[in-house]
Amino acid sequence: MKDPLKTIRESKPLIHHITNWVTIYDCANMTRTFGALPVMAHAREECADMTNIASALVLNIGTLTTEIIDAMIISAKAANEKRIPVLLDAVGVGATKFRDDMAAKILDSVHIDIIKGNYSEVAKLAGEDARTRGVESTAIDAEPRQLAKKFAGSRSCVVVMTGKDDIISDGERTFVVKNGHESMGYIVGTGCMAASVIASFAAINSDHCDAAKDALCYFGIAGELAAEKSVTPGTFKMHLYDEVFGLSDERAKVMLNIEEC
Amino acid sequence: MKDPLKTIRESKPLIHHITNWVTIYDCANMTRTFGALPVMAHAREECADMTNIASALVLNIGTLTTEIIDAMIISAKAANEKRIPVLLDAVGVGATKFRDDMAAKILDSVHIDIIKGNYSEVAKLAGEDARTRGVESTAIDAEPRQLAKKFAGSRSCVVVMTGKDDIISDGERTFVVKNGHESMGYIVGTGCMAASVIASFAAINSDHCDAAKDALCYFGIAGELAAEKSVTPGTFKMHLYDEVFGLSDERAKVMLNIEEC
Amino acid sequence: MKDPLKTIRESKPLIHHITNWVTIYDCANMTRTFGALPVMAHAREECADMTNIASALVLNIGTLTTEIIDAMIISAKAANEKRIPVLLDAVGVGATKFRDDMAAKILDSVHIDIIKGNYSEVAKLAGEDARTRGVESTAIDAEPRQLAKKFAGSRSCVVVMTGKDDIISDGERTFVVKNGHESMGYIVGTGCMAASVIASFAAINSDHCDAAKDALCYFGIAGELAAEKSVTPGTFKMHLYDEVFGLSDERAKVMLNIEEC
Repeated sequence: MKDPLKTIRESKPLIHHITNWVTIYDCANMTRTFGALPVMAHAREECADMTNIASALVLNIGTLTTEIIDAMIISAKAANEKRIPVLLDAVGVGATKFRDDMAAKILDSVHIDIIKGNYSEVAKLAGEDARTRGVESTAIDAEPRQLAKKFAGSRSCVVVMTGKDDIISDGERTFVVKNGHESMGYIVGTGCMAASVIASFAAINSDHCDAAKDALCYFGIAGELAAEKSVTPGTFKMHLYDEVFGLSDERAKVMLNIEEC
Repeated sequence: MKDPLKTIRESKPLIHHITNWVTIYDCANMTRTFGALPVMAHAREECADMTNIASALVLNIGTLTTEIIDAMIISAKAANEKRIPVLLDAVGVGATKFRDDMAAKILDSVHIDIIKGNYSEVAKLAGEDARTRGVESTAIDAEPRQLAKKFAGSRSCVVVMTGKDDIISDGERTFVVKNGHESMGYIVGTGCMAASVIASFAAINSDHCDAAKDALCYFGIAGELAAEKSVTPGTFKMHLYDEVFGLSDERAKVMLNIEEC
Repeated sequence: MKDPLKTIRESKPLIHHITNWVTIYDCANMTRTFGALPVMAHAREECADMTNIASALVLNIGTLTTEIIDAMIISAKAANEKRIPVLLDAVGVGATKFRDDMAAKILDSVHIDIIKGNYSEVAKLAGEDARTRGVESTAIDAEPRQLAKKFAGSRSCVVVMTGKDDIISDGERTFVVKNGHESMGYIVGTGCMAASVIASFAAINSDHCDAAKDALCYFGIAGELAAEKSVTPGTFKMHLYDEVFGLSDERAKVMLNIEEC
């Protein structure tokens, strides 16, 4: 996969989201700004049909209900059959028992190709004793790189832990993405947008570990470029969209900041 | 209708929306920026009461459920009785059977004054063999101007097909709006916002064909003016709101770019 | 409470919202920009658990359904037991009987610490004959300061009436906040955001009347500072976030514009 951005912009993969009501617009808009096509559809009567014309599926439990979880499982089954990547963004796992139970139900019912969350969300999902403050990570006991690697290996999937450093593992290779800027943490939604970006890259790259790595590097690079214009959240967010839109594979490649560990 | 903007800003018509969760904020905010008053209410227990104090009703099926469709039909019946315009934005028709069926159910149950969608959404609604990629139009077989005219005539309504050129027909007169800028297509939501704008103009103009024509010209002109400041999506969207807010009928009238065909 | 902003930024109180789908993103993002942590969760299975780890609860009925009202009452009961402040933003009360009834049901079922709305929403809630145009206030017969004071006294709570001047009363003391800028009224969502800001201040100040007063002054001051950069809605909103982010207690204190009456 030499030029992921060019490939996304040419093939315009359709990214089906069943997501939360807080950041749903930014998930759609960031997907579009990267060059993919977003669609959001959560009715149980149509969600499998929508997945069947898509190239990737994003499940984000930020404002989950039992009905939404049912739709997610229906769509994920369709995605598994069609062999398109499914990403679970485990928003708020570790905050309430219901979130823990519903995330576990999803993992027990379908295959998830990419599990994503902040440190405490992923730690809780992996069976550690971790607490999430609403949707905000707290410190975890486990060493995050080892946790990501072990959890990915046990589930035969890619695990993405987002935070100051983003950690990505497929159980064999483990990477730390150092691209990004702290201003991305000042605005609500960059975590959810990152899931949409990863799904867009996974839609055109069957190596989902590489796709997640590229996605987080590119998104972080756009954040670095936006921060050169402004670091305050209102203007920063506007520039973030501009920089994603104007980014090229050539520009991104010279700014990659990633370590294998 | 000499000065639509002035009329909207003075009379502040209330525009009741039952719409999707992706672009709901921008629909409300664009309605307000044009000078009308948005209200969003989808509970079946209150939706007819809200319609009864409104001057236009927007139905957008972007994230439909059966409950939402029920509310739409209840509100549209109230609107029909009260004789205020009802606009259906057929988002995603042609993507799943459920959307096709629900849009047909609405059209069978109530009178829609303005049917709006992109080329493949409207073509599918009109009985053509068309497919929509999520919410993105695909090429259609029929000649769009003829399709709009025929469909409008058969349903005694105004049909609006949005795309590179926007087509508007009431079955007798057919117009092509050439105002607008390609940057409007780079951001999610301009199509949905256009529906809110059309409804705001239709609320103060009983000739819904003229209202739709004016609305799309004015919105497109604001897009052209915004693009003079920036064409990248983050900054463009911000300027789009500023230009709508600062637009005058005088300014708009000298920039109209419309053809009757 | 000497330095509310500093206290919020250091303690990062978790603000649980059960709110509407129109402005949900801006409620979360403004909460974060002030330095608190937002979380949105409305499933009945988890809402009490989320309230139990929060420091304040915001109930906003902008796009209410019976299910959402049930969740609000469950969460408010948990908040009452835990003795954390509950704010009700009575969006649209006076527009439909359903909103009037559901707001009354909340007030009858739980203790609300801070009742907030525009003039006609609060007047209707207080038993006056008032009508709301969707979510837009209409003129009311009662003198607003007396109404706020009497209503607050009768319910042993703080009442906040927002409009050109914001009125705050705990039944004994009554204040008029004159900070703010008219551009805040040009964009959808500043009223809802104000509720999130008040809740953030109330989370760290047990005198909820002072908290509401400080919150509306600080938010209004950020609006005044943003308006020095731009008064048109697209750019203004972006600057509003920047100015909230950059605000300090020192800066705010010299700009306070408030009267006791």
